[in-house]
Amino acid sequence: MTEQKATNVHWHDGEVTREDRSKILSQKGATLWFTGLSGSGKSTVAVALEQALTAKGKLTYRLDGDNIRLGINKNLGFSAEDRTENIRRIGEISKLFVDVGVITLSSFVSPYRADRDLVRELHKQAGMDFIEVYVDVPLDVAEDRDPKGLYKKARAGEIPNFTGISDPYEEPLNAEVVLNSHEMTLEQEVDILLQIMTDRGLLAA
Amino acid sequence: MTEQKATNVHWHDGEVTREDRSKILSQKGATLWFTGLSGSGKSTVAVALEQALTAKGKLTYRLDGDNIRLGINKNLGFSAEDRTENIRRIGEISKLFVDVGVITLSSFVSPYRADRDLVRELHKQAGMDFIEVYVDVPLDVAEDRDPKGLYKKARAGEIPNFTGISDPYEEPLNAEVVLNSHEMTLEQEVDILLQIMTDRGLLAA
Repeated sequence: MTEQKATNVHWHDGEVTREDRSKILSQKGATLWFTGLSGSGKSTVAVALEQALTAKGKLTYRLDGDNIRLGINKNLGFSAEDRTENIRRIGEISKLFVDVGVITLSSFVSPYRADRDLVRELHKQAGMDFIEVYVDVPLDVAEDRDPKGLYKKARAGEIPNFTGISDPYEEPLNAEVVLNSHEMTLEQEVDILLQIMTDRGLLAA
Repeated sequence: MTEQKATNVHWHDGEVTREDRSKILSQKGATLWFTGLSGSGKSTVAVALEQALTAKGKLTYRLDGDNIRLGINKNLGFSAEDRTENIRRIGEISKLFVDVGVITLSSFVSPYRADRDLVRELHKQAGMDFIEVYVDVPLDVAEDRDPKGLYKKARAGEIPNFTGISDPYEEPLNAEVVLNSHEMTLEQEVDILLQIMTDRGLLAA
């Protein structure tokens, strides 16, 4: 856990509660955490789920490597230490979003088990729903897709610390959902996710 | 501006837009940034505004020094450098919240003009509403209130870099709203804020 440097601070209980916001939204906040190799299909299924939920009038937001790294985490690189701090901050932001009541779709390679487990623990401590979604495809499938041309660059040695090539991906051991995107339709993937959300009572206040 | 370390990233346009979320919420996202001395009454008015907006069915969220410093910014202290990074990160989070569609009430001493101006600029670049609310009371009024006993400790030398005592507070030059909380009722303060939000069309989709 990151050291607590600031003293003289204590949690400020808002007068308006998470439950109040949940009633306004007719939903409960939750984090769906999509993890998997670059090119595994994390963003594709997150975008499709976002569309399906929006059509139902639900409030969602997608956090992903691109928009986060251009903003709050622009001062972080791809060393192991920076990757950990990257995921820690995103976990804290996801938690704030869940407190607002947003269905938060966090889509990050997030290759290290310990980092994902920290985010899970942060949510658990706050009594928040956390659903780990492992988008699991073989490396050669992801590399064949190579939608951003990153594997090619990594193989050429142009990108250091590239997950799957020169940096490890630690598979989830207890993900709530595993999606083999190369063997399923997008519609099937979305249905599985909507089902677990319904089962958990997230789509009502 | 903070150096952009991560490369190979580009803004990921979501398929669901800010406008879609605004329609679901029947409001527009905006940041109201409350700045002023410790004890000036920032949190008090932010809480009262939050209650008033919630009663109207609007989705709000308060970010404040206490809840942020226990979470995402727990690895930051109170040096000038850490204060700047603290406000930068909060500005980026506020921006994400506005993108969701939330009326975001960010309540921080935020003593440095350059830091507040950076947050304003971040919002401006993204076409987002940013309303700086200067809660302006004389130092002796804030120190008399001393709700957390911090001035007493600062005067005793127990807290270094304490704004107003051993660290500067740089007054806003062009705040959209100035509230002299020692000369106004809370109701008057809330009314002023609701009026500017109505004038800007934030309380409708």
